[in-house]
Amino acid sequence: MATVIDGKAVAQTIRSEIADEVRQLSQKYGKVPGLAVVIVGNRKDSQSYVGMKRKACAELGIKSFDVDLPEQVSQAELIKQVHQLNANPDVHGILVQLPLPKHINEEEVLTEISLEKDVDGFHPLNIGKLAMKGRDPLFLPCTPKACIELLQRSGVSIKGKKAVVVGRSNIVGLPASLLLLKADATVTIIHSHTSQPESIIREADIVIAAAGQPMMIKGSWIKPGAAVIDVGTNAVDDPTKKSGYRLVGDVDFGEASKVAGWITPVPGGVGPMTVTMLLKNTLDGAKRYIEQNN
Amino acid sequence: MATVIDGKAVAQTIRSEIADEVRQLSQKYGKVPGLAVVIVGNRKDSQSYVGMKRKACAELGIKSFDVDLPEQVSQAELIKQVHQLNANPDVHGILVQLPLPKHINEEEVLTEISLEKDVDGFHPLNIGKLAMKGRDPLFLPCTPKACIELLQRSGVSIKGKKAVVVGRSNIVGLPASLLLLKADATVTIIHSHTSQPESIIREADIVIAAAGQPMMIKGSWIKPGAAVIDVGTNAVDDPTKKSGYRLVGDVDFGEASKVAGWITPVPGGVGPMTVTMLLKNTLDGAKRYIEQNN
Repeated sequence: MATVIDGKAVAQTIRSEIADEVRQLSQKYGKVPGLAVVIVGNRKDSQSYVGMKRKACAELGIKSFDVDLPEQVSQAELIKQVHQLNANPDVHGILVQLPLPKHINEEEVLTEISLEKDVDGFHPLNIGKLAMKGRDPLFLPCTPKACIELLQRSGVSIKGKKAVVVGRSNIVGLPASLLLLKADATVTIIHSHTSQPESIIREADIVIAAAGQPMMIKGSWIKPGAAVIDVGTNAVDDPTKKSGYRLVGDVDFGEASKVAGWITPVPGGVGPMTVTMLLKNTLDGAKRYIEQNN
Repeated sequence: MATVIDGKAVAQTIRSEIADEVRQLSQKYGKVPGLAVVIVGNRKDSQSYVGMKRKACAELGIKSFDVDLPEQVSQAELIKQVHQLNANPDVHGILVQLPLPKHINEEEVLTEISLEKDVDGFHPLNIGKLAMKGRDPLFLPCTPKACIELLQRSGVSIKGKKAVVVGRSNIVGLPASLLLLKADATVTIIHSHTSQPESIIREADIVIAAAGQPMMIKGSWIKPGAAVIDVGTNAVDDPTKKSGYRLVGDVDFGEASKVAGWITPVPGGVGPMTVTMLLKNTLDGAKRYIEQNN
């Protein structure tokens, strides 16, 4: 049976490390990290994510700057708000919750976030530096960074291992591949055009599943002893639940946990780590800024 | 026996396409593309590369701006020259020949080249856009672009194929991997920390070899019918030659050409294509600029 990686517990450990550092910053400089979370409109899922992020800030002593804009806000007004946050020395990270309403061009808005405050790490310049040998981005994207942290804190070595990333999205699969490559894994990226993914996954010492396909990866696809990080969070119908659904990953956990060496559950694996990495990025941005300006 | 991909012939075809487009630009706007090639010092290999690039410009009607600086030029002076070229509306591409002398920080110099004139495509913002889905860089790095052109013009389909890139340098292996991924191949990147590379290469429909290891890839490593693009250019001792050496690739051509479906020779494969892609990038940059400003 696999060791189940408890993302909640790892996240808790890291959060207390962050809280310690926030206290030290506050004692030394009289300043705390600040994270601006911008939300446009009333999407329930977005509101729930934003609520989680703001609550987590409060718990760790990070100051949260709340910008709540109406659904019909113009792109120009939204960008003006971003510029004000860029100029605010107490804000060290800016997060614009996606998706934005259809009349707003997400790319044009995100590009306006100052690189030094791009705690999501999605700016193409950050991604370019992440890809290149000898370059380092200011921030690593949160979910890929969470995957690597979970591996490292579980004692899974990456160097020289065969890693397979399932999915190639800009926010998870692609940057996760680049991070694994920087950590000296032999990396294969598979996606919807890959034929016979199972034969490739079966060779992998490390699998990062980020395809958004409920339970697509079966137990028989997993190499015995492999480390499996499941980024998928898919709602599937479940009449036995009050809500009518339950969350499952991209991996069939019941089967795979009998074969793998390590595996993350869904929920409770990567999920709780992602927000934690956002807080860590905010802390790092704040340290960089405060130490340079004091 | 493999079809030997004649890089010289493909390059010649593309060069005559470029020459046609240069003529059209000249007729329509009275302007031609301009490429600035900057060389510092007297390295023989650099002078030979630069000479080749300038000669190729002349042949296609591209105006070459020659900047030859002494070995002991200061970094500030070099950057000043780059800024002047950035500001010159007749220069559409700027190439600073590497390596630069030790007292100059290459990264700091290259970052000064205007993105719109970065015909080498090495800027991290370009690499980031190359990596990301839905984004397009202004220029593709020349050698990776050459590899893809050779595959496409030889009728090798990429979508859904298993591609293996051997080597992960910023200028060849890494961007070649990203290009193959964008073309919907299933991509594996192998490097010096990969154990048993032969077992991975043996599965590949497409191999791009860019490790800089003379003849490391044996015929028995190649899947029958695979397309093999050999970027390696290694000098090995050869007492039968007047020069005392000959050039070989990263692939054992004699063996591999008996197994592969397609293969590029060394020399005469990727080499002649790389300079051609530089000229193509210069043309594209010129078209973008001239069409926007007329």
